[in-house]
Amino acid sequence: METMTAHRNPCTYVIFGATGNLSRIKLMPALYQLEAADQLSPGTRILALGRRPWNRRQCIDQMRDWITEKLKGTPDARVLDALSDRLDYFQGDLDDDGMYDRLRERLRGDSHYATNTVFYMAISPNGFSQVVDRLGSAGLLRETDGWCRVVIEKPFGYDLESARALQRAIGAHLREEQIYRIDHYLGKGTVQNVLVFRFANTMMEPLWNRNYIDHIQITHSETLGVGGRAQFYEGTGAMRDMIQSHLLQLLTLVAMEPPVSMEAEALRDEKVKVLKSIRPIPHDEVHAHAFRAQYGQGNIGNDPVVGYLQEEGVPADSATETYAALKLYVDNWRWRGVPFYLRTGKRMAAHHSLVSICFRHPPQQFFRGTQAERMRQNWILLGIQPCECLRVEITVKEPGLEMRTRQTSLDASLRTIGDSVTDAYEELLLDVIDGDRSLFLRYDEVEQAWRVIEPVLRSWAGGRDDISAYAAGSWGPAGSRRLFEKEEHRWRHSLDPEPENPPRSG
Amino acid sequence: METMTAHRNPCTYVIFGATGNLSRIKLMPALYQLEAADQLSPGTRILALGRRPWNRRQCIDQMRDWITEKLKGTPDARVLDALSDRLDYFQGDLDDDGMYDRLRERLRGDSHYATNTVFYMAISPNGFSQVVDRLGSAGLLRETDGWCRVVIEKPFGYDLESARALQRAIGAHLREEQIYRIDHYLGKGTVQNVLVFRFANTMMEPLWNRNYIDHIQITHSETLGVGGRAQFYEGTGAMRDMIQSHLLQLLTLVAMEPPVSMEAEALRDEKVKVLKSIRPIPHDEVHAHAFRAQYGQGNIGNDPVVGYLQEEGVPADSATETYAALKLYVDNWRWRGVPFYLRTGKRMAAHHSLVSICFRHPPQQFFRGTQAERMRQNWILLGIQPCECLRVEITVKEPGLEMRTRQTSLDASLRTIGDSVTDAYEELLLDVIDGDRSLFLRYDEVEQAWRVIEPVLRSWAGGRDDISAYAAGSWGPAGSRRLFEKEEHRWRHSLDPEPENPPRSG
Repeated sequence: METMTAHRNPCTYVIFGATGNLSRIKLMPALYQLEAADQLSPGTRILALGRRPWNRRQCIDQMRDWITEKLKGTPDARVLDALSDRLDYFQGDLDDDGMYDRLRERLRGDSHYATNTVFYMAISPNGFSQVVDRLGSAGLLRETDGWCRVVIEKPFGYDLESARALQRAIGAHLREEQIYRIDHYLGKGTVQNVLVFRFANTMMEPLWNRNYIDHIQITHSETLGVGGRAQFYEGTGAMRDMIQSHLLQLLTLVAMEPPVSMEAEALRDEKVKVLKSIRPIPHDEVHAHAFRAQYGQGNIGNDPVVGYLQEEGVPADSATETYAALKLYVDNWRWRGVPFYLRTGKRMAAHHSLVSICFRHPPQQFFRGTQAERMRQNWILLGIQPCECLRVEITVKEPGLEMRTRQTSLDASLRTIGDSVTDAYEELLLDVIDGDRSLFLRYDEVEQAWRVIEPVLRSWAGGRDDISAYAAGSWGPAGSRRLFEKEEHRWRHSLDPEPENPPRSG
Repeated sequence: METMTAHRNPCTYVIFGATGNLSRIKLMPALYQLEAADQLSPGTRILALGRRPWNRRQCIDQMRDWITEKLKGTPDARVLDALSDRLDYFQGDLDDDGMYDRLRERLRGDSHYATNTVFYMAISPNGFSQVVDRLGSAGLLRETDGWCRVVIEKPFGYDLESARALQRAIGAHLREEQIYRIDHYLGKGTVQNVLVFRFANTMMEPLWNRNYIDHIQITHSETLGVGGRAQFYEGTGAMRDMIQSHLLQLLTLVAMEPPVSMEAEALRDEKVKVLKSIRPIPHDEVHAHAFRAQYGQGNIGNDPVVGYLQEEGVPADSATETYAALKLYVDNWRWRGVPFYLRTGKRMAAHHSLVSICFRHPPQQFFRGTQAERMRQNWILLGIQPCECLRVEITVKEPGLEMRTRQTSLDASLRTIGDSVTDAYEELLLDVIDGDRSLFLRYDEVEQAWRVIEPVLRSWAGGRDDISAYAAGSWGPAGSRRLFEKEEHRWRHSLDPEPENPPRSG
């Protein structure tokens, strides 16, 4: 995470799929914010590429509408004008070979366009390899006068095999250093929070291993259902959509060894080491390591909602999971024997991401014969979303003459909702220009993540008999407890204190 | 710390010095509270012994006045009556041999008096050995029908030699199990708080050693001056009054190994091991380990106060320290090389007792090149008085794109001022009846504590050249920093966050 330079080299941002959804809700608003913060160098230009028969004026008007729509207040007219001056439109069909030649002529023939180029793939994943291939064939990916970088949105592949195929295809034209695989779940701030917490405090590192930690839970829950995205979701499911990418990312941050430095390659080296250390799930033991379910009807807040199979666009016999849980072991010196429980679901009781670290029991014989006999375990809770916070749960004595203990929480807020910080996409767009790849996925990370869940995907492709159900608005199916290594393990649902006698459900 | 029994054996509480100050402000009010809480068994009686020519009625009236004076509200008449029924007065001179025979006749001749007997020495320390000797000669200390226990207020001796002499004298008549040496600074709740914090949390014990802890500070500061107690204080001083007893007690709690159980002997075994492991201060290096000072004039709050040498009853050339600081090393596997800084003073800026544990720096090269380069150390602060609380200071990332860190506090209150808990003296009186010696000092504890400070007392007896001064209401003399092993060490004055650029004074 190198220091930002105030004076960036100019570059040309070519956005494939510029008329689409991602461009509307993320890219254009992010570019507006960067313009407002004076983070774009004067020579930087944006070439919006789409199939629609727009001219430059139409594109600019559309962009202004999108930004106005996204921003809560009125956009700054001066900023909008400045951004409009950078913007041009290029009409073309991705399947049309001739388009790439025209694009080359446009970029090379017009001295307005800087020779540093970003190609941003805001298109359907199945178009990635074809577009890169044609860009390469048209000579657009050669770094002759300046750099050339390609941004690829997730998912990178659909499984291990397709990820390898995609990598082979784009690897024919691009060096790894040119490829920016986006995973925008973890912002730079969150990554830094976790690393600072772990490595800037002498108190943490000695405890952070199998000698003291009993198990670790990583949860991402959403209250939303599939909404209008049923078509996308049917081809994905919770395991691919969240666990393969986001939750495994969080796992690597929590589990990694101290990196040599905060630089991107040093971090990624350590992340890959964690992924490579994850014990492969045997093909015939998937049922003991993975659990899936679909939400049924229920209530979110006070509003009744339909079940997944009743959502528009979802086939009645869908085998796509909206809830997935996974038990993993990291077989290295630090973590051998410590279960990592990963869990995600849609239509759950709350929207949050939480890492919960449960410490082993202290040896109890010390308090034998006193009323403190049944002591609780220590927990460290790292809240990731919606608020970034830290909770340490320890045991203290109850006031009074008797030797009773209680659990108490030590809390710190790292960043609360509404703190004005740069949005993840703005950071990412800048990072591409700055060549900072710390928040992007290196290929070996992606491949290793697919490797981890490959046995599960294969097993689940076999039918839908093992799909459980849970009520929308609940904390998920009770059956997921079958993954737990110990009888006493329980999901931590939120930052709320663990109940004295935890219920068995969920 | 055994469980209290609702049905205690009856006993006779004989209070020597019953007309004195301790009786007035501590013992009688504590007995009232025990009566109110129905903690005294029906057969328990109190025999108040003093030189004044009172009769029973006068004694009862006086006791009622004292209790009314001490209690904030009006005492409960029913409780006062019940307590009065237990109370009787015995007039006698401690130097009068015949008195002890009369006392024996009174106790043995009246079947009202239970055969279990507590002799409470609420008298001047120089009377301890004589009274015990005469009680013994009169046959009052023999445990024939019931038990017999002697409570001795601190200080137990004036230095190592006198403590040994006192022990020899009383040891001729009493087994160690009959002797209850009071040190009422640490209530049972505080002791338990520290032990629960250390040993009921898996997170603490792995960190609690020389591998991770840089140094430990133990501070007891008072805003009070010597007040009307100049005569007592002149013969004592801060080192004897606070460090030999109270602060070394706290040190043993913080430094001890996990005891086998919470039982008194198990705790005391571990405390003595710590004291025995303290590296002796060489007689010619006292100046590098100990520091003393007297307060000069200054302000407490907004009120001007005089200096120690101007206090009534203090000679102008007094060499009695009102401030003492001591650096100690515990030479065992856990603590070798970790300095323990103990400090106490009167007329300081605030009244509190605080244990501050400073952790070593994390290895910094990880954040090299970022703006987090100068990271702070972790601290754990255990507030003992006036509020019992816990603070953990850790480093987190500042919100924002840049890699800056800040210190944040995780807090828990263990017991706040005003929580209704039994006062230390009530606990102690009950513990004597219950035979629970966990809060009392075993002789080897006392002897070892004197051993620790003996070289300092000898050195300080040599003159007053090395006595520094500090302004009343300040945090003490800056010169005490000469004890610090590292340039960067600084006194933690309070629970307030450590300043970013700590001032050099104090």
